[in-house]
Amino acid sequence: MISLYLGAIEAGGTKFVCAVGGENGEVYERVTFATKNPSETMEEVVQFFKSHKLKAIGIGSFGPVDLDRTSPTYGYITSTPKLNWSNFPFVEEIKKHFNVPIGFDTDVNAAALGELLWGAAKGETGCIYMTVGTGIGVGAVIEGELLHGLSHPEMGHILIRRHPDDPFAGSCPFHQDCLEGLASGPAIEKRWGKKGAELADRPEVWELEAFYLAQAVANYILILSPRKVILGGGVMKQPQLLPLVRQKVVHLLNGYVQHEAILHRIDEYIVSPGLGDNAGICGALALAKRAMEQ
Amino acid sequence: MISLYLGAIEAGGTKFVCAVGGENGEVYERVTFATKNPSETMEEVVQFFKSHKLKAIGIGSFGPVDLDRTSPTYGYITSTPKLNWSNFPFVEEIKKHFNVPIGFDTDVNAAALGELLWGAAKGETGCIYMTVGTGIGVGAVIEGELLHGLSHPEMGHILIRRHPDDPFAGSCPFHQDCLEGLASGPAIEKRWGKKGAELADRPEVWELEAFYLAQAVANYILILSPRKVILGGGVMKQPQLLPLVRQKVVHLLNGYVQHEAILHRIDEYIVSPGLGDNAGICGALALAKRAMEQ
Repeated sequence: MISLYLGAIEAGGTKFVCAVGGENGEVYERVTFATKNPSETMEEVVQFFKSHKLKAIGIGSFGPVDLDRTSPTYGYITSTPKLNWSNFPFVEEIKKHFNVPIGFDTDVNAAALGELLWGAAKGETGCIYMTVGTGIGVGAVIEGELLHGLSHPEMGHILIRRHPDDPFAGSCPFHQDCLEGLASGPAIEKRWGKKGAELADRPEVWELEAFYLAQAVANYILILSPRKVILGGGVMKQPQLLPLVRQKVVHLLNGYVQHEAILHRIDEYIVSPGLGDNAGICGALALAKRAMEQ
Repeated sequence: MISLYLGAIEAGGTKFVCAVGGENGEVYERVTFATKNPSETMEEVVQFFKSHKLKAIGIGSFGPVDLDRTSPTYGYITSTPKLNWSNFPFVEEIKKHFNVPIGFDTDVNAAALGELLWGAAKGETGCIYMTVGTGIGVGAVIEGELLHGLSHPEMGHILIRRHPDDPFAGSCPFHQDCLEGLASGPAIEKRWGKKGAELADRPEVWELEAFYLAQAVANYILILSPRKVILGGGVMKQPQLLPLVRQKVVHLLNGYVQHEAILHRIDEYIVSPGLGDNAGICGALALAKRAMEQ
């Protein structure tokens, strides 16, 4: 039995990762299981954690979620199309079993915080973390604080310019050809008829993908002025993609943002996650750490 | 002689406004003069303020500016194309004459803070303020703090989708057909051959303008999740424009951001400046107030 560590939940629409870890982002033990309905899933979560004495628990959740602490539905997953999870009181359910401080945020905000504390943005006061996979999501830390507002950002759904030679209609049920609709993993598969991993040798696939992602990153830079841009998720595992995105971002900004990070050090400014595939679960640990300190 | 008030400088590329005012945003006295070279302009600024005993001075400046307090060029206007003003140490110059706390930020961040304290976003913890005029600029306050980062945001230059029937090439010297290149006052004049004010009776002009502005506002909402969106500047004086922008933003978001401010109260969410044409100068007063309190 490990005692007095931090608990972390990376709650995804298809899988849950639970871990216990330490205050420097170390993961001591972890389990991964498929996301089922809330009661079955919570039983597995509680089962994993109950053998540990925890100081705090952090939850990085798929969304949309209610992050407004003054709201009666704070800590809920709200209107998700995953029907059983709609209006699920996530924080309340965890509190029933564990009487410790609980940190709760979106999965991507969690990952951004994890990368800031222990990953590619260590030493900075802020960063954005973008995941390009089944969906596209972006989390942000600005001057040490997680970005919230009216609700939480939904940066994966911004409008970008279509490539004139791209016949694919887009796959977002809300916006059709928004960023996620054109550049997520499923969009790549629908457009080209194969998964991204099977298209590694087709340069046109990654040129087009970078064309879309670079527009989004350029807009994030112009709007948020992030101190570091971190690109993760399954689609970014294609090693040819990141250099293409960097090159196109520099081209799009065209010298307008006169900062040496962009003009001279783009390879250190737009980077891969320092925590690799652990960005999400370490992010949840980071939320636990913050909850404990507050 | 007015004693112990706040000084405010709204420093624009074509005109300067200086004012003395109070801690509730009241403007007691103001002057406006054309922007000349820095030494002539500073002489006029000093002349205006020297008959007043001031507690603090706030400067909302055209940019780009250096807002990094750890930088040797903090408080400078940096690489502006207005040649005489490039590398101008604005805060230093003011400090030579007035030994008081000095607040310094971009003109649009100042206006956003002014609107938050005393205008359309009063009672909120954040807002964005967009001005559509000679250029397009956007300032933001997030959870009480002015938005900075690597440098300051440059939201007026984001990429948006061109309308397929718009033959105008765009007027931005850096990005050609970015938002500012397609939707600023000069872009309207170049496209249609007349100033916006003379095109009031041409519905197609405002449909197209709203098509561009709504895309930008939708992206700002998805990226920043602002608590209030304030649209000011000369172009927004066309009363038909704001309702069109609201309608198109709602259409573009298509129910995705499930917050009642967007779903049911868009008229109260996307609004005109509460301070009208005083947003800029009141914003500079707000910067002075913050500088005094810090």
